Amino acid sequence: MTTRVAIVGAGTAGLHLGLFLRQSDVHVTIYTALRPEKLAASRLLNTVAHHHVTIEREEALGVNHWPCEDYGYFGHHYYVNGKEPLSFYGDYAAPSRAVDYRIYQPRLMNDFVAHGGSIRYGEVCTAQLSALARDYDLVVASMGKGSFQQLFARDESESQYDKPLRLLCVGLFKGIEQRETPAVTMYFSPGHGEMIEIPTLTFGGMATALVIENVPGGDLEVLAHTRYEDDPEAFRKLLLRKLKKHYPVIMARIDESHFDLVNGPLDILQGGFSPTIRASHTILDDGTVVPAVGDLHALVDPMTGQGANMASHGAWILGEEILAHDIYDHRFIEAVDRRRNDRILSSNRWTNYLLANLPAPPPELWDVLVGLSENRKLCDEFTENFNFPERHWDCFASPARMRAWVASHTPEEGSSFRVHNAVAHG
Amino acid sequence: MTTRVAIVGAGTAGLHLGLFLRQSDVHVTIYTALRPEKLAASRLLNTVAHHHVTIEREEALGVNHWPCEDYGYFGHHYYVNGKEPLSFYGDYAAPSRAVDYRIYQPRLMNDFVAHGGSIRYGEVCTAQLSALARDYDLVVASMGKGSFQQLFARDESESQYDKPLRLLCVGLFKGIEQRETPAVTMYFSPGHGEMIEIPTLTFGGMATALVIENVPGGDLEVLAHTRYEDDPEAFRKLLLRKLKKHYPVIMARIDESHFDLVNGPLDILQGGFSPTIRASHTILDDGTVVPAVGDLHALVDPMTGQGANMASHGAWILGEEILAHDIYDHRFIEAVDRRRNDRILSSNRWTNYLLANLPAPPPELWDVLVGLSENRKLCDEFTENFNFPERHWDCFASPARMRAWVASHTPEEGSSFRVHNAVAHG
Repeated sequence: MTTRVAIVGAGTAGLHLGLFLRQSDVHVTIYTALRPEKLAASRLLNTVAHHHVTIEREEALGVNHWPCEDYGYFGHHYYVNGKEPLSFYGDYAAPSRAVDYRIYQPRLMNDFVAHGGSIRYGEVCTAQLSALARDYDLVVASMGKGSFQQLFARDESESQYDKPLRLLCVGLFKGIEQRETPAVTMYFSPGHGEMIEIPTLTFGGMATALVIENVPGGDLEVLAHTRYEDDPEAFRKLLLRKLKKHYPVIMARIDESHFDLVNGPLDILQGGFSPTIRASHTILDDGTVVPAVGDLHALVDPMTGQGANMASHGAWILGEEILAHDIYDHRFIEAVDRRRNDRILSSNRWTNYLLANLPAPPPELWDVLVGLSENRKLCDEFTENFNFPERHWDCFASPARMRAWVASHTPEEGSSFRVHNAVAHG
Repeated sequence: MTTRVAIVGAGTAGLHLGLFLRQSDVHVTIYTALRPEKLAASRLLNTVAHHHVTIEREEALGVNHWPCEDYGYFGHHYYVNGKEPLSFYGDYAAPSRAVDYRIYQPRLMNDFVAHGGSIRYGEVCTAQLSALARDYDLVVASMGKGSFQQLFARDESESQYDKPLRLLCVGLFKGIEQRETPAVTMYFSPGHGEMIEIPTLTFGGMATALVIENVPGGDLEVLAHTRYEDDPEAFRKLLLRKLKKHYPVIMARIDESHFDLVNGPLDILQGGFSPTIRASHTILDDGTVVPAVGDLHALVDPMTGQGANMASHGAWILGEEILAHDIYDHRFIEAVDRRRNDRILSSNRWTNYLLANLPAPPPELWDVLVGLSENRKLCDEFTENFNFPERHWDCFASPARMRAWVASHTPEEGSSFRVHNAVAHG
């Protein structure tokens, strides 16, 4: 008997899960509100880096339409602003890639249908879940926004903050010269915020995403509130002024006369949210167990570029466990969570640590920043670990771990800091 | 710098952990109250089956002094008493073995010292832990009995019972003829209890352990309260009377004139305890993290013979993670727990399920028992799963799972019940 799975939501988690299950001929229906052409015409959804762990999954799913030779980037530049600025670079083991989700998601929706999946368009409200559950062997919730959140309890122990740590201004820009070797640049302005510059495929070709993360109450907060549409030229000038002050090194690559949103006012998104971990599943009144994936399970600040990678990771493991089980109950969820949660929780913990501490770095964080600037091997590992947030948390979970990690890469010490398990955990 | 580990307690968990760490030249000191010769002269400690997963660890540690060719057994006979008794047999994939712990533990203590470990004799009280922690990189608590329990909070969600589910009478007996092919026999007397007969190496050579598990308030409870020492002949007669009534099939192999404790009154142990899962670690006032292993972490009723196997499993994983880490903090414990807890919690859940339901089996449990009696392949899997309690719990976690598991082994159905993960989790 063919297993029948319904997925509510067509983000990265829903699409990767659907495509994964289609490879094993599972009957999959995705429920989503927006048709591909509507999605393509919408406001910027987010700005998303896919690290090589995610690209490997896309390759396995047959949906890597954007090869890294043409669209990828190869490492991270880091700049710490201040009286004595720090500047350093680290390589990935394999490239990352960013594509505007208004291109990516419609393409994968079409892939999903081409692979035999069904998509039904329209809103699904929480009251309809029990009816869906009667028609399918399993219903998966992957709708990060909207009413589903109320069904999945906030995990208080993992959700430390009940307000945004940053107020965001993210957009797709032209007029920024690409580096010869494409790379992300992460800019830190202690006390005010961070900015992540990401080479991104847009409707206008390769351009630049700027993820501007602004400390509430700081000098940059205004960027999250000033509407581009109200006065594009005023916004442009405001942004250039703030970049010069807080992230001056980017100015050498900006052609001010051409600097603007790539394709117009829909290329910007502003606002803020509280990083939130929710219960990994809910149990409906009729006893049906509904797992959560993607942002619904873990909504993490975009500063470290983890959202899509966690969503894809969680979806992949959920898919493997769907194939490995016949009965989708609480015991099934235990198997899923045991394999996915360390990466997902670590991603949120590590990102929150940085957001909380970068504004006024404690000594151990300064020591890490200085260590990264002085030791290329350390910085390569730090950069590659964006693929493996659990390793980042192994290094950042306490001041003692941070010190030991930096020390382990100091040749004089000759020690080796063993934070990564020698045994593979799947 | 050599890692220094202190282990408080010299049971299976402490000894296997100590021996494991000695293989990597970790500096290990075990603290325990009793010298080997005192332990050898003590009352029966317990009755313990080592399944092949545990024997494989002993082999790797160089302490498998009791080869299964000579001391092992190869499967389980099962008898369900009643108007229409059921009787069936299942094979292990590889044999199990039982040795009186008054032989086993002194031998392994000597092995541990021969492998370069240190043992310090004397009581360690909870107040001494912080001082120990200053002398060692890590202190491990593996003392199942005594004051340490108060430092490790009872896990209420996993510890359903606050009183014993069975009152126990366990002893080492002679006068029971061994089967031609050695095997455990599990006897079920619905409403009254269970009895596990285990071929066991004793000070008097191969003999028989009887683990008599008695429902409180039932006809067999008296066996837990009647003291052998008070009147050995009266006890012997009482026990024979009860065996005839509740477990009559064993009588064919009992020579009543020779039936008695093998070596005298120290070969019996009586009493009861509440199955209890405790926190996997405690944090001392000075911030030191102390992991728990063995009975201190999970004290499970002996009916399913899991105690030593869980202790060894937990110790082995703890050992691997000690080698993989440099910093023994809460993050370290997360890595340990992620790998050991499914087996440990499953063992307790499955054992408690049987203890709670065997007195008056619900229909789905009767169907399992009948299925086991009718389908050798099912019964082989059931028997082998005593090595892997998480697989038992995959099959017993709900009535739906029990039905699906039995159905998956019915040739007519031709289905395959996928409860075991396709992906290895270490």
